[in-house]
Amino acid sequence: MRRSQLFIKTRKEAPADEESKNAQLLIRAGFIYKDSAGVYALLPMGLAVIENIKRIVRHEMNKQGGNELLMTSLQRKELWEHTDRWDDAKVDIWFKSHLANGSEVGLAWSHEEPISDMMREFIASYRDLPAYVYQFQTKLRNEVRAKSGVMRSREFIMKDLYSFTRSDEEHQKFYDSMTQAYLRIFKEIGLGGDTYLTYASGGAFTQFSHEFQTVTGNGEDTIYLDREKGIAINEEVMSDEVVAQAGVNRDKLDKVQAAEVGNIFSFGTHKSEQLGLYFTDEDGSQKPAVLGSYGIGVTRLMGVVTEHFADDKGLVWPENIAPYMVYLAGLGDSEAARQAADAAYDYLTENHIKVLYDDRDERPGEKFADADLFGIPYRLVVSDKSLAAGGLELKKRASTEVEIVQKDQLANRLKNPLQA
Amino acid sequence: MRRSQLFIKTRKEAPADEESKNAQLLIRAGFIYKDSAGVYALLPMGLAVIENIKRIVRHEMNKQGGNELLMTSLQRKELWEHTDRWDDAKVDIWFKSHLANGSEVGLAWSHEEPISDMMREFIASYRDLPAYVYQFQTKLRNEVRAKSGVMRSREFIMKDLYSFTRSDEEHQKFYDSMTQAYLRIFKEIGLGGDTYLTYASGGAFTQFSHEFQTVTGNGEDTIYLDREKGIAINEEVMSDEVVAQAGVNRDKLDKVQAAEVGNIFSFGTHKSEQLGLYFTDEDGSQKPAVLGSYGIGVTRLMGVVTEHFADDKGLVWPENIAPYMVYLAGLGDSEAARQAADAAYDYLTENHIKVLYDDRDERPGEKFADADLFGIPYRLVVSDKSLAAGGLELKKRASTEVEIVQKDQLANRLKNPLQA
Repeated sequence: MRRSQLFIKTRKEAPADEESKNAQLLIRAGFIYKDSAGVYALLPMGLAVIENIKRIVRHEMNKQGGNELLMTSLQRKELWEHTDRWDDAKVDIWFKSHLANGSEVGLAWSHEEPISDMMREFIASYRDLPAYVYQFQTKLRNEVRAKSGVMRSREFIMKDLYSFTRSDEEHQKFYDSMTQAYLRIFKEIGLGGDTYLTYASGGAFTQFSHEFQTVTGNGEDTIYLDREKGIAINEEVMSDEVVAQAGVNRDKLDKVQAAEVGNIFSFGTHKSEQLGLYFTDEDGSQKPAVLGSYGIGVTRLMGVVTEHFADDKGLVWPENIAPYMVYLAGLGDSEAARQAADAAYDYLTENHIKVLYDDRDERPGEKFADADLFGIPYRLVVSDKSLAAGGLELKKRASTEVEIVQKDQLANRLKNPLQA
Repeated sequence: MRRSQLFIKTRKEAPADEESKNAQLLIRAGFIYKDSAGVYALLPMGLAVIENIKRIVRHEMNKQGGNELLMTSLQRKELWEHTDRWDDAKVDIWFKSHLANGSEVGLAWSHEEPISDMMREFIASYRDLPAYVYQFQTKLRNEVRAKSGVMRSREFIMKDLYSFTRSDEEHQKFYDSMTQAYLRIFKEIGLGGDTYLTYASGGAFTQFSHEFQTVTGNGEDTIYLDREKGIAINEEVMSDEVVAQAGVNRDKLDKVQAAEVGNIFSFGTHKSEQLGLYFTDEDGSQKPAVLGSYGIGVTRLMGVVTEHFADDKGLVWPENIAPYMVYLAGLGDSEAARQAADAAYDYLTENHIKVLYDDRDERPGEKFADADLFGIPYRLVVSDKSLAAGGLELKKRASTEVEIVQKDQLANRLKNPLQA
């Protein structure tokens, strides 16, 4: 993409009312637009990051046997009354509205109830189990305060998978397999080294849920982390008993700030009983299906990655989710440099390496500042100076080292199968 | 995909309260699930059709210079008050809700106002124009009656592009270019031969808008069609004057039922004036930007295609948007037939031809009925009989002719670049 064709405008300052570091940077770099408190539109480069995260998540969900579908945002009140989650006193983040005939509807903040209800049509016999379905859906949550940018916004894209299994054993097997899938996802996204399986509150349904927490300065959660074992305990459930159950050593626990990037949850058979989701087992008996739910806040992940990697020059994207792999800047007015920059652009495009070509008539300093602000993994400079030195100047975003490379080496040097 | 891995359940009967042919069929075939009146979830094969339509539309929008982004569903009341479109008496399809602090918010049914308001940050000078942005976004519309299935639902995916131009001339040039892009899209989707540019009401802003209407029995609109010129007039604006302006011959007009599949609309500078979207022109003067909006109801298109092509056996998908290209059915218990079916499945998968492999232990009649109900373009049968005849039986969905083909011929025979 040529910069002159990209819909973008950078800003020197974030909006005065924006408190969070992630939204401040993403707004300044033109990745998102703030419509109102906690409500952000995705501009082209922000949308590209989101689509990259979705592709990584989708790949792992499909490997788990997940079938992608898309549930509705409009939800029926009666389903949530069955499970006592309609009342604003019980669930305080509902957005609710009315049909033209006056009856109340809810706007989706989660989908356990509608999906379990739908499953009554799909699951009749043990032969219909297990069933794993997931979606990328825009959730609306009526947060009282929205001051964490895209890490806790009122509207965001979430991946939610729901598992329906025949028994606790079958459930546990899938739950463990999803745990590993989640760890692979966070590694693939670039957060692997700092993301930990974390014991957290299980609410009314189970002793624990499991969160995936990324250690990062501005995280909203406090966790106790055993780095050696790669296991953490959320402060909210911290006790001697839990330390023992988690099999960690209390003396080795670090207390750190972290941001939740995913969570997985066992509901047991409680919701199936409430909603009437029963199947006929092999012995002829009627049994409620075991429900698990598995969330990843996709928009939130963009915020956590921002907070985790950004430096004083701007964003820093891991290669697998960067909107572009290369920021190509042609400098100077010489015809030779311009032609070499055009040739590099054509070469990268033909080799399916995503490139943003800054073809504007701007000072080098402006172009370098934008390359840094956008956080594109590689900056490639073509100028009379680079040509005199024998090629193109390649620099990694987070490094100060510059190397001279030949155009034809770039495919081998940069190619990432995920970017193809 | 193996049928045994696909999340699907077919139904003999549609829900009793479902009046529309498109939703009845899509529900019976397991493409969609009806949550409530006018509210449908997309099951895996329905989602695949939607994604195929999006890919075709996206390709053309990018060619027009469109930048994809994603605006928010939550919208600010004040913007719509500025343009007098907040009042339910003026716009009767709003879903509205409240933030936790009590202030009212709207749920997106369209985006002219929020996008124009956002553009005040992006457009300062004539150098920032033209700007073309588009999205695939889930719209909510509070339809009083929802009886047309996915052709007019309360929640649906829409492609909406907005153009901001410097002058009426620049606007008209883009508008004409989009008209051609739309005609290419409908051709690519498979509706080309029966879709016509149609003069329709322009409301308060312009004399006409243009709709794209597909001639189909259950269409909600009546149009007067000049088949020779490929131009139609919506009954709502039909008059001698419009006949003259459209340059058609009144004697040659056929009165037919049709379904709207897209519409394009000129707003002039009215909205920019209301919302304060001005730019500095080359001569230093302040001018309001010219706005155009260009919609395609993606979910609706799935419904129109269903109504247009379906027969008494079920759905019939054009190849470019079919969820799978091939329905592969292995018949009989012989080891030879099973191995040949597995080999055909592997071959098609390796050649990136989307195949649904009915690997179930079911009677041939059941498998054939599902292949027809799902509307997959090609049915491929592997059985002792087909092997004795020298290969595999290939049949087009809408044909009764069966031909024997060799496995290795299938890639050339079936490959569609769009399916890759």
